[in-house]
Amino acid sequence: MVAMADIRTDDGRVAGEAAVVRMLAPLTLGAAGALDLADDCALIAPGPGCELVLKTDPVAEGVHFLAGDAPEDVAWKALAVNVSDLAAKAARPVAYLLALSFPEAPAEAWLRRFVAGLGEAQASFGCHLLGGDTDRRPGPVTVCVTIMGEVERGRMVRRGTAQPGDVLFVSGTLGDAALGLRLAKDGALAEAWGLAPAEAQHLRRRYARPQPRLALAGALRAHASAAMDISDGLAKDLGRMATASRCAMRIRLAALPLSAAAAKAVAADPAARELTVAAGDDYEVLAAVPPHRAAAYAADALAAGVAVAPVGEAAAGSGILIEGPDGAPLPLARTGWDHF
Amino acid sequence: MVAMADIRTDDGRVAGEAAVVRMLAPLTLGAAGALDLADDCALIAPGPGCELVLKTDPVAEGVHFLAGDAPEDVAWKALAVNVSDLAAKAARPVAYLLALSFPEAPAEAWLRRFVAGLGEAQASFGCHLLGGDTDRRPGPVTVCVTIMGEVERGRMVRRGTAQPGDVLFVSGTLGDAALGLRLAKDGALAEAWGLAPAEAQHLRRRYARPQPRLALAGALRAHASAAMDISDGLAKDLGRMATASRCAMRIRLAALPLSAAAAKAVAADPAARELTVAAGDDYEVLAAVPPHRAAAYAADALAAGVAVAPVGEAAAGSGILIEGPDGAPLPLARTGWDHF
Repeated sequence: MVAMADIRTDDGRVAGEAAVVRMLAPLTLGAAGALDLADDCALIAPGPGCELVLKTDPVAEGVHFLAGDAPEDVAWKALAVNVSDLAAKAARPVAYLLALSFPEAPAEAWLRRFVAGLGEAQASFGCHLLGGDTDRRPGPVTVCVTIMGEVERGRMVRRGTAQPGDVLFVSGTLGDAALGLRLAKDGALAEAWGLAPAEAQHLRRRYARPQPRLALAGALRAHASAAMDISDGLAKDLGRMATASRCAMRIRLAALPLSAAAAKAVAADPAARELTVAAGDDYEVLAAVPPHRAAAYAADALAAGVAVAPVGEAAAGSGILIEGPDGAPLPLARTGWDHF
Repeated sequence: MVAMADIRTDDGRVAGEAAVVRMLAPLTLGAAGALDLADDCALIAPGPGCELVLKTDPVAEGVHFLAGDAPEDVAWKALAVNVSDLAAKAARPVAYLLALSFPEAPAEAWLRRFVAGLGEAQASFGCHLLGGDTDRRPGPVTVCVTIMGEVERGRMVRRGTAQPGDVLFVSGTLGDAALGLRLAKDGALAEAWGLAPAEAQHLRRRYARPQPRLALAGALRAHASAAMDISDGLAKDLGRMATASRCAMRIRLAALPLSAAAAKAVAADPAARELTVAAGDDYEVLAAVPPHRAAAYAADALAAGVAVAPVGEAAAGSGILIEGPDGAPLPLARTGWDHF
């Protein structure tokens, strides 16, 4: 337990870096290599026969989350977007480093809720805080997680190993988070789209609480030629897989899995359909699977609790093609999220 | 080689995240686990019998470096401040992750020089780029390095294991960087302090190009009870070691090693003396060494090319005491750098 009296200033803000560290320290329980956050560095070693899988992907207020978002959700998302990459690589989350930046000392109440959200997320994903850093700088609140996972040596599922003929699968449903973000910014859209409160809530929650598809690890390892998570929109990430795999990829818009809520929104506002292929924050898994393994992949995924849908194929050549409802290639106003 | 034509917009800015990645990719040469920056994650495993030592410490424009600083120096510093922690732990640098944030697409010329500085630094420290992320967000340019080093299992030199009676050593000289920062902000000080151009240049370079004390690894492993790097000022970091080690620490201001340039500045401006104990950016190593090993530690350090000076002792009790020139405890206006 942390004694709050000595870490809070009169205006309710956390007093000093050491106080921030004390609030975070309980998140290291079970991780011996964290050294109770009382050393300069942390220690980690993969298990026998394993190697570490690494990813760092920061989230910043106003870019990856909204200023008014619940601190628990911000924490969840900061960890989840990194764990999602591990999920697509069939790696098990082990530990993470956390670099926090604030333009001014954070309110103690905000930080307490943020720590609670991290605790919930790490318990859900099976990893621990291992170390980190806190500083103050102008600009948005920024949470930079570096995640470390574990995989048997040489068994990480790669991005650039898809083969012509592979069936392309996506997990879950696409576009929910992008629609949820639009709802979060403009509540009146729920009525315009004819959404029931539970449907609107589903979309907003898909934005706020992405669920990394860790349950897919076994099916990916057993069957997939290649996989990656969809974080910047299917079209953009598909293009990345096509480039890395040196082949062409074709998908059918009509085959993309939509939630009931997203289907309603798209029916009411056809322009919103583009969000299912060209907006970020899906955190689903794109996998390329040899045709003779496609049925087994889908069955194993479903047995693990994750629906996967075939949406297209890899082919010899280069580039991507998205076939619209009329069979013609879809022209996209934007192909996905690019920071620049 | 990167073809520049396709990664530069008409106004000389880098076009797209993929273009940034292509410019960084040559820094991964020799690191198979980087997968050419063409996968979602990177891979690493420590050598046989070793574990990984981890640290993340971001630097931001206006906080850790100045807007006008040379891009090569910014890159060097971003890596060096992290490597410095490894040096104090007697760990060997192996690889690093890099998360870059820009408020707008960086100028191609700036990024090219930044990459050159990283290349120079990683060659000097013996590590490779392994992976990372680039994004755009408001606020200062930020470079978040996560460094990974290697150490024989269980042999990392800790912060919290100093013993009463240990002799306290610091490497190199203190206060140079803080004085160099003041010079960088106010060039007229060089004359006020009576510095020759080479002396002023020495101080500015100590600010811009910190030199992690990697050469100390053998001496630390052989002799030190405890060690940490001095990044937030000796007084503050000494307090951290005292707290973690559950003992008291006493140092003598007169024993602190100063460069000739710093000694001149302090003689001309006695108030600047405080910068030698209470300002950041020294990146020297504070070590606690049992008395019967003190001579061997100093000799081994010197043989490795690093001067170390005894500056005080650890004792039973708690807290720190800095003895001023008159033998009385020094009152400090500030005890070191705290972000909040």
